[in-house]
Parts: sequence; structure tokens; C-alpha cells
Amino acid sequence: MSRPKKKTAAPSANSVPTAVINRLSLYLRELQRIVRDGKQTTSSQALGTLLGITDAQVRKDLAHFGQFGYPGIGYRCEELVRAIRAILGTDQVWPVAIVGVGNLGRALLGYRGFVQQGFRFVAAFDIDRSKVGTPIEKVPVYHLDELSEVVRRESIRLGMIAVPAAAAQRVVNRLVEAGVQGIVNFAPVMINLPEHVSHVGVDLAMELEQLSFSVVNRRDSG
Amino acid sequence: MSRPKKKTAAPSANSVPTAVINRLSLYLRELQRIVRDGKQTTSSQALGTLLGITDAQVRKDLAHFGQFGYPGIGYRCEELVRAIRAILGTDQVWPVAIVGVGNLGRALLGYRGFVQQGFRFVAAFDIDRSKVGTPIEKVPVYHLDELSEVVRRESIRLGMIAVPAAAAQRVVNRLVEAGVQGIVNFAPVMINLPEHVSHVGVDLAMELEQLSFSVVNRRDSG
Repeated sequence: MSRPKKKTAAPSANSVPTAVINRLSLYLRELQRIVRDGKQTTSSQALGTLLGITDAQVRKDLAHFGQFGYPGIGYRCEELVRAIRAILGTDQVWPVAIVGVGNLGRALLGYRGFVQQGFRFVAAFDIDRSKVGTPIEKVPVYHLDELSEVVRRESIRLGMIAVPAAAAQRVVNRLVEAGVQGIVNFAPVMINLPEHVSHVGVDLAMELEQLSFSVVNRRDSG
Repeated sequence: MSRPKKKTAAPSANSVPTAVINRLSLYLRELQRIVRDGKQTTSSQALGTLLGITDAQVRKDLAHFGQFGYPGIGYRCEELVRAIRAILGTDQVWPVAIVGVGNLGRALLGYRGFVQQGFRFVAAFDIDRSKVGTPIEKVPVYHLDELSEVVRRESIRLGMIAVPAAAAQRVVNRLVEAGVQGIVNFAPVMINLPEHVSHVGVDLAMELEQLSFSVVNRRDSG
């Protein structure tokens, strides 16, 4: 067999299911862990076992983006880490802004998992003037009125919303006006966005519902 | 056509994909919103449009659990809300414990979305004695050494972990020993669990990766 092509095919808009993108994140975490443990290669079977899915599913997921395995070797872990980061767009560092520095905002600013995956908070915003000016986790806190200026200056493309539900849409509108291209919404409310802005809503209660379903049906959703 | 059967079929273990359970949560949110807006019925098409999926997918998802639509009417919203809550196991209130009352723990204790969906924090735990004894969001804070006793007394079945990564597995072991049946892990690390305990890991960076993928590929993941 010839050496496989490794050119990454650009996925066309909407062609790749969200569930596949989520599994790419999981593959990436496992591969990073395998590299940390000092191993150089792994297999579809090993990755599948770790995530509770079949090796065929692993191969099918990755096949959306190119061919990454080597016959008789499997995947070279560091190479696949680089490839997945390129697919996810996290081969670059993304400067991120967060709006709302209540408990949730502070928790997110201190969450180590973001930096590890290529996301760096460069600015936080609030409307409470008593919070403005004192950095949190070394991230400067600005008044929301400074949003446009700071977003431009720091080349911020992603924004995170950790404000009360009632304020979420107003904050979204300001982020969009400021030119942010993607928004993660932690407020427990649906938001409206123009088509050119991507967004992900995080509903923390969904995880609990998945868990209660599993417990009621004695089924490991792990 | 005859009136459809509405008996809810008990899903067998592992037969329903996790993605379907997650969509049940999304249907539930939309139905609750429709009810709040004063409407009594809706359709697969309307639900699908709200969530960006086909009406066929909506019908297929619900068909895992029974038949819920009425010919010529569609879904009766309040009835479908009750049915989905019964499927998810949230037709009861679940007493929940949280371990770790740092910023993330405090944020979770104050998160309004949990109570709305039937999850009520009844106890928080920490190893920092300066935090023990002072309620947060009206939830008592105990020392971790009191875990078993409180879990038994309060009939706690679900636990949430918001401790540093290095402490996560130790805390998991104690929750399992105390008899908790399901665990949501917010620590950015994989944990090992016995088979009879369900768990869901929440990796907040996954949402950002989904977003960066969307921005790079100009694709609305909403």
C-alpha cells in the first residue's frame, strides 16, 4: 500500500455534523494525553475504546478531513494532534473576550482548560464600575462601553457571555456591532444572531438531564 | 386515523444515542418557552426549524420513546413537556451535591437553569475549613469528611465536581463510596468510575473549539 495522502480536505459549510466536531475535541484530548504519557502512535481501536465508540466510527469521523493513518503503524499522535488543531482552527491562539465577571465569569477566566487548547482571555467587561480596572486572573476588566475599542485593538474574534439572562441579547448585539465573529453564550436563554456570526449555547442543565436519564435507565452515558 | 398510543416505551440500556437525549433537552426548552408564550400546540416542523433539524429527525427522536403527536393537531405542548420530563427522569426533583466551592462551584450554585429543570442543590462540600459553615446561595457548605453522612441523610443521588484536576479522582472515589449514582465532572480531566455509576464530563473548551471550527469554516453551528 502506498503512503496515505495527508492533505486535509477543507470541509464545506454544514457538511460535517456537530457531533463529529465534538468528537474531534475528544480525540484531541486523548491524543494529547497519550503524547504526555510518552507514546508515539495509537490506533482507531484504541481511540474508540477510550471514547466508547467503534473503530469504524473513529475512521469515518477522521475521513471527513483526509487520511491520517499509516498502514501497519496507525496514527502518529503528534502529527494527528497538529492535524486536528488545524481542522478545529486551534493551531492559532484565539484572543477571547468575556462579558460579565460575576461568579461564572470569574470561574471561566480561571478555567485552565481554555489556555491548554489555544484560547486566551485578553479582556473582560462588566457594567459594574466597582469591578472595572481590577484585573481578574491577570485579565484586565473594562467597562462595557469600551467594548468596540478594545475588540478592535486586541483583534478579538470570539466572545463569551456570562451575564444574567435578561441582559444576554443586549450584550450579544454589542459584541456583534464590535465585529466579534463567534459567541459562546452561557446565559440560560436563546439569543438571536445575524447569519455571519457563529454561536454555541451552553446549557449546563443538559448535562444533568443526560445524567438523570442515565441513572433512571441505569445506563452509563460516560 | 385512530388516536395514537401514548404509552411511553422504556428505552433499553444503551439503545438511545446520547445525541438524542441531548436533543430531548432542547425540545423540552423550546416546548417550555412555547407554553410560556401561551401557545398550546406545535408541530415537528416548528420544533425542527427552531433547532435547525428536519421534522423527520424530530419525529424519529421522539419515536424512540412512544407516539406523542395527534393527527391534525400536532403535539400538545404541556403533555409533551410532561412526557419528556418523565423520559429524562426530571419529573421528580433531584437533590444534588456539589464538591468544591471555588469560583466555578459558586457559579454553579447560583446557576438558575438547574432549578428550572428539576435539580436542587442541597449540599456543598469543600476541604477549606474557612469556607465550611457559611451557606452559599442558601445551600449549606460542609467539610468533605461529612460527605457520606450528608449524602445518606439528604438522599443525594447526583454529585457535581468542581475541584482542581489533581483532586478530581479522589473526590470521585469518595462520592462513589457515599453511594452517589451519577456524577457530572467539571474538572478538566478524565476520571475512572465503576460501571454502576453514570457520569458526564463537561469540557468547556469543547464549545470554544466548535466555535473556532465554525468561524474558520464560516459555518453557523448555532
